[in-house]
Amino acid sequence: MNYKQNIVLSNKDYDVVGTRPIRPDGSDKVTGIARYGADIFPSNYIHGKILRSPHAHAKIKSVDVSEAENLHGVLAVVTSKDFPNSENKADKYLRNNSLAQDKVLYVGHAIAGVAAINPHIAEEAINLIKVEYEMLEPVLDAPFGSSVNAPILHDDLTTDTFVDEESGKTNIASRFKHSIGDVKKGFDTADIVVEKEFNTATVHQGYIEPMNVTAHWNNDSRIHIWISTQGPFQVREVTAKALGLRTSQIKVTPMEIGGGFGGKFPLYQEPVACLLSKKAGKPVKIIMSRKEVFEGTGPTSGSRLWCKIGVTNNGKIVAAEGYLAYEAGAYPGSPVEAGGKCMFACYDIPNVSVEGIDVVVNKPKVAAYRAPGATNATFATETVIDELARELNIDPIDFRLINASQEGTRRADGPKFQKIGAIELLESMKKHDHWNSDLIGDNVGRGMAIGFWFNGGNRSTCTIGVNPDGTIILVEGSPDIGGSRASIAMQAAEILKIDYTDVYPSVADTDSIGYSDGTGGSRTTFATGWAAIEAARDVKNQMILRAAKIWGINEENVDYVDGLFISKSDNELQMTFKDLSSRLADSGSPITGKGTVSPTGVGGSFCGNIIDIKVDKDTGKVDILRFTVFQDAGKAVHPSYVEGQMQGGSAQGVGWALNEEYFYDESGDLKNSSFLDYRMPTSLDLPMIDTVIVEVANPGHPFGVRGVGEANIVPPPAAIANALFDSIGIRLNTLPMSPMIVLNSISELKE
Amino acid sequence: MNYKQNIVLSNKDYDVVGTRPIRPDGSDKVTGIARYGADIFPSNYIHGKILRSPHAHAKIKSVDVSEAENLHGVLAVVTSKDFPNSENKADKYLRNNSLAQDKVLYVGHAIAGVAAINPHIAEEAINLIKVEYEMLEPVLDAPFGSSVNAPILHDDLTTDTFVDEESGKTNIASRFKHSIGDVKKGFDTADIVVEKEFNTATVHQGYIEPMNVTAHWNNDSRIHIWISTQGPFQVREVTAKALGLRTSQIKVTPMEIGGGFGGKFPLYQEPVACLLSKKAGKPVKIIMSRKEVFEGTGPTSGSRLWCKIGVTNNGKIVAAEGYLAYEAGAYPGSPVEAGGKCMFACYDIPNVSVEGIDVVVNKPKVAAYRAPGATNATFATETVIDELARELNIDPIDFRLINASQEGTRRADGPKFQKIGAIELLESMKKHDHWNSDLIGDNVGRGMAIGFWFNGGNRSTCTIGVNPDGTIILVEGSPDIGGSRASIAMQAAEILKIDYTDVYPSVADTDSIGYSDGTGGSRTTFATGWAAIEAARDVKNQMILRAAKIWGINEENVDYVDGLFISKSDNELQMTFKDLSSRLADSGSPITGKGTVSPTGVGGSFCGNIIDIKVDKDTGKVDILRFTVFQDAGKAVHPSYVEGQMQGGSAQGVGWALNEEYFYDESGDLKNSSFLDYRMPTSLDLPMIDTVIVEVANPGHPFGVRGVGEANIVPPPAAIANALFDSIGIRLNTLPMSPMIVLNSISELKE
Repeated sequence: MNYKQNIVLSNKDYDVVGTRPIRPDGSDKVTGIARYGADIFPSNYIHGKILRSPHAHAKIKSVDVSEAENLHGVLAVVTSKDFPNSENKADKYLRNNSLAQDKVLYVGHAIAGVAAINPHIAEEAINLIKVEYEMLEPVLDAPFGSSVNAPILHDDLTTDTFVDEESGKTNIASRFKHSIGDVKKGFDTADIVVEKEFNTATVHQGYIEPMNVTAHWNNDSRIHIWISTQGPFQVREVTAKALGLRTSQIKVTPMEIGGGFGGKFPLYQEPVACLLSKKAGKPVKIIMSRKEVFEGTGPTSGSRLWCKIGVTNNGKIVAAEGYLAYEAGAYPGSPVEAGGKCMFACYDIPNVSVEGIDVVVNKPKVAAYRAPGATNATFATETVIDELARELNIDPIDFRLINASQEGTRRADGPKFQKIGAIELLESMKKHDHWNSDLIGDNVGRGMAIGFWFNGGNRSTCTIGVNPDGTIILVEGSPDIGGSRASIAMQAAEILKIDYTDVYPSVADTDSIGYSDGTGGSRTTFATGWAAIEAARDVKNQMILRAAKIWGINEENVDYVDGLFISKSDNELQMTFKDLSSRLADSGSPITGKGTVSPTGVGGSFCGNIIDIKVDKDTGKVDILRFTVFQDAGKAVHPSYVEGQMQGGSAQGVGWALNEEYFYDESGDLKNSSFLDYRMPTSLDLPMIDTVIVEVANPGHPFGVRGVGEANIVPPPAAIANALFDSIGIRLNTLPMSPMIVLNSISELKE
Repeated sequence: MNYKQNIVLSNKDYDVVGTRPIRPDGSDKVTGIARYGADIFPSNYIHGKILRSPHAHAKIKSVDVSEAENLHGVLAVVTSKDFPNSENKADKYLRNNSLAQDKVLYVGHAIAGVAAINPHIAEEAINLIKVEYEMLEPVLDAPFGSSVNAPILHDDLTTDTFVDEESGKTNIASRFKHSIGDVKKGFDTADIVVEKEFNTATVHQGYIEPMNVTAHWNNDSRIHIWISTQGPFQVREVTAKALGLRTSQIKVTPMEIGGGFGGKFPLYQEPVACLLSKKAGKPVKIIMSRKEVFEGTGPTSGSRLWCKIGVTNNGKIVAAEGYLAYEAGAYPGSPVEAGGKCMFACYDIPNVSVEGIDVVVNKPKVAAYRAPGATNATFATETVIDELARELNIDPIDFRLINASQEGTRRADGPKFQKIGAIELLESMKKHDHWNSDLIGDNVGRGMAIGFWFNGGNRSTCTIGVNPDGTIILVEGSPDIGGSRASIAMQAAEILKIDYTDVYPSVADTDSIGYSDGTGGSRTTFATGWAAIEAARDVKNQMILRAAKIWGINEENVDYVDGLFISKSDNELQMTFKDLSSRLADSGSPITGKGTVSPTGVGGSFCGNIIDIKVDKDTGKVDILRFTVFQDAGKAVHPSYVEGQMQGGSAQGVGWALNEEYFYDESGDLKNSSFLDYRMPTSLDLPMIDTVIVEVANPGHPFGVRGVGEANIVPPPAAIANALFDSIGIRLNTLPMSPMIVLNSISELKE
């Protein structure tokens, strides 16, 4: 396959960056040698289990653990009483989500932990714990939660709106408003205005590897945690906070990770495992069941959104207004503000207002999920945009091109875009064979949509050591979820002009590499890659000094060109990187370089989909016939892994669009907490997802890299909704557009 | 206990260096959490066993592994044929010692490796391998090996002396001669000359943890080795050489190590485990039995020595001559030259000649053992010196003080001493209560002796990262055998003026830290400590830059004094290390420092013993009544661990002196290959060994550190021999001075 044809606008060719080598962790991962979180077995470790609430909302009147404690084989039982007292709200929420204190706030809310000599006894002990509840009415969505009559989850939320007037209490944890221009005046100049309401369901990240932790509270008051996590340094920091310890009392060893998608940042059972280990004096391992993962760990926010956009007859968007009500789950912290920032980010609109609220509800506390908040918001925006384009009878790509954001466009939340790739993306979509091919058959339709997501910068550290054989070791602190060992090693190889296979990257524990933020926020290849670039430059400079020393000349006279150290003044003096590496031992110290970054020049990535579907009007089932995803990667360091991200995000977006949802009954009980009942797309549901990488260099990175991990989940729901309208003329404003919903709409259409 | 009383001449006081904190690995090691070589269990690992020769010297006529290969459960069998062809002698010897090719050269010589699904099947398979031998006469000591009639072990040794004249072959692998002055003339001016011959037995390092290796030859052609070793980078390099790979194809993870003493540097079963893994496609673990450790791994050289010293009547040594014949074991490489360098190093003698030969014999290839070669040689020297002092009727310490080496003394092998502590050591011995106390009882005696051993420098790398809470992580590549995590962390803490408990040191694998030579040669606290000093200085400089950035002032205006960053121009601007650490996140990149060293200023350490003994004349058993060890530590970074080294080396020296020896029968079969029969000292054999640290700063190290791991094994045999003469008047020249030998001498004395 000629991959190159799928990359357009390649901004620059490099020796290593842009190639497609095999990942360094590949062999370990396919042969079963790679160690995931469950694969660690410290001496004398024991097994932990967690008692979870069967109720969505209830006061805890009492917890009696005495029988559990007395069961033979039980070594420790902990409840919220084992946490230190919380002096502030953040600590209290953190601890209460790990182990409920006065109330349970969702089905699956942890109440007590047990550690025993085997998992069966631990489970038996869990069943011996007696909890008395006082049942309360559950709050299951944001509109109800923010209504005047809603039951109140927390006593201490202080937002000044939507309160229960009598008690002065609220479920609204925070609110925001961003605006530019004058929206009212803007809408006054519009020829057409479309305004709609949208709902999106609660969906889960659905990583294959369940949450796991092994913790050992050592006699020297240090804790060692082995865990599959996206952010070992965050686990360190937050666990310390939960336990009232100093950060460095905890050492976190990141194991290999079987998917995260944002969901493997937050803490759940980690502090419980630590407390159990402290009591038992042994390492404690807890692995969640899939049911626990669904019930007890962060899904993304279900949401209700209102979107209103006004255009002139010539296709220029003149005003936009958005309102977002996102579910936070049981504790504050939905990605509603991020959703608000992305809602209209694809377009250059003079008058914009976006408001949003973060509402606590009786569901698990939400966690980040790939471009958190943006998929919900973009489903609204891109559906309305599609409707507007149709009303105006303008090609939807042309309509977007008229209004697309570009360098200098100011977003409603303030910042101006630097060089971005929205226009190039749309142009490449327009030219693509998929867009220009015919649709054949009945009940088929084509939709397109685009979406935006930020890149994170944050902090990363990397060290590089030179081996005597001219290879290098590279140590980083970013767990490798999607091939980042490769994409980071490649950037070091590029700087040092050595083969990619001469770089041996490792992901180190928090005691063995300097501070590095987690793998998420589309930051790893960008920022940790940059740290690798800096470390490689440091090595190069030291190698130049060493060459000068060996030749007895001034360092100013040594150059490094195409893998060759050369004397500028004497052609005879030349050494390859390998030559010089082999001479380090006899000429001085070993050479190690370091790179630490906290980069500012973060880009942002646009993604577009063209999707063909076919609707079975008898069942309401939507089949994806063809799916092409376009994304601006800045510079694709390893195009195959960029494509993997694009395909993965697209597949998940299809799940959001067509099937995935948390299905609660009226009491707040989750009825589909298994992969059989929570319907994620499988390979049978998806065609081959074709990819087109659009390279519009990020001027803020040495190689022009943008992060590509997230934006690709954003457009699919809207693109499929638009295709659905194109196919059979129904316009859905609810996710998922499941067969039942589609069938109902078809029925309504007939009526 | 007031430890301080045991440290004399303390050269300088520091905040952290010189204190006695708890080791960072202490808790893990006492609770069983620490993972030694046997504690690693990669997925799908299988078990290896090695077939070993029952004969000391034989040609291998054939090896038939077919039955073993066909045994159910056997996954791989390897023989020497599985190694690449050897293009040079060194590679050939290396490979042949791992798996014998044409000949077996000692009882225990490995011939074939088997990997099977469990160790029992592997052992069964070993017994199914058929080897046809053609027996040859064994060579069991250096004098016989170097004699004209000796059977020849190797066809390709090329030393030009002591050859079998007919065949042109030899067992003498190398020879050396060092001399200064004119020895003949020197002896002519002597009033008294003593000349004696000495023998020392083959003894083993006797580490508690047996040799172990787990190797995985991965599908991507990289090998991962988990091993308890003193030198992970050496294991990497030498295994690669044995297998004909490039160095970096191998990753070595050093596990915790249960003793090494020099014996855990060389390779034995590592290449075999790799070859088995390659064939089987799975990780292979091999753990030696104690019998295999004794029979198949490096003891130190048995030796024969001649020592001749001439003095004038006023006590000045005018000439010395030494001749050393050391057993190399089956392949070249005894420490004879090092022994020769140490033989007269304690004394400033104008005319010295030392000659030595390295003789291959039918015993396991020798390995380094704590001050390799020096104990043998010093046994000779210090016995003769004692005899001379007695003849001259000069106090033995005074006699040594007259002649002691000092700054500027030139050794016979060339170099001049820098500042050393021989005189200070002797003076502190002379003043010590032990030397000045009375001996009470029958058959009691007191002896003293001193010894010298070098310090190694070599290469080390260290990185330090700053945590947000003001603690630091420290990554090093030197396995921690005797507390070096502590002694290295302390040096970083000293530079950064932070608490020792704020340093979290880790020993990394060869993929995760830059090149670092092994833990041995009395180099680790000296050189890796220095790397930590450099890394800490790097951190300090970056912290100063950051403080300047935060304050918006020039870095020249920032100072770091007593743990406080201060502005030189504005007293109000102050931050502690912790303050600034917590502000790194908001002010720029994380901070990581690196240090790489290849230091030249290595010192050298002198050690002295005063030992009181009591002889049971009926059994020949010698009891140690009192033992005081004095050693020049330069600056004792962690005095308790220095004392631990002094006590450990002393205990081993007592083993050499009184009991330990490889006991071969005439056929070359080792008859005492277990800890029951190979008699090491136990706690019942030893009194509390009192320690006196003498601090004579090494001017070549920032804190004046000298390595202290080895010199302490050097003097005990001579000191005990001298005490034996003092007690009952017998002068022994053979090690060990076992009850049988002592009893025989008592009988001779009576005759």
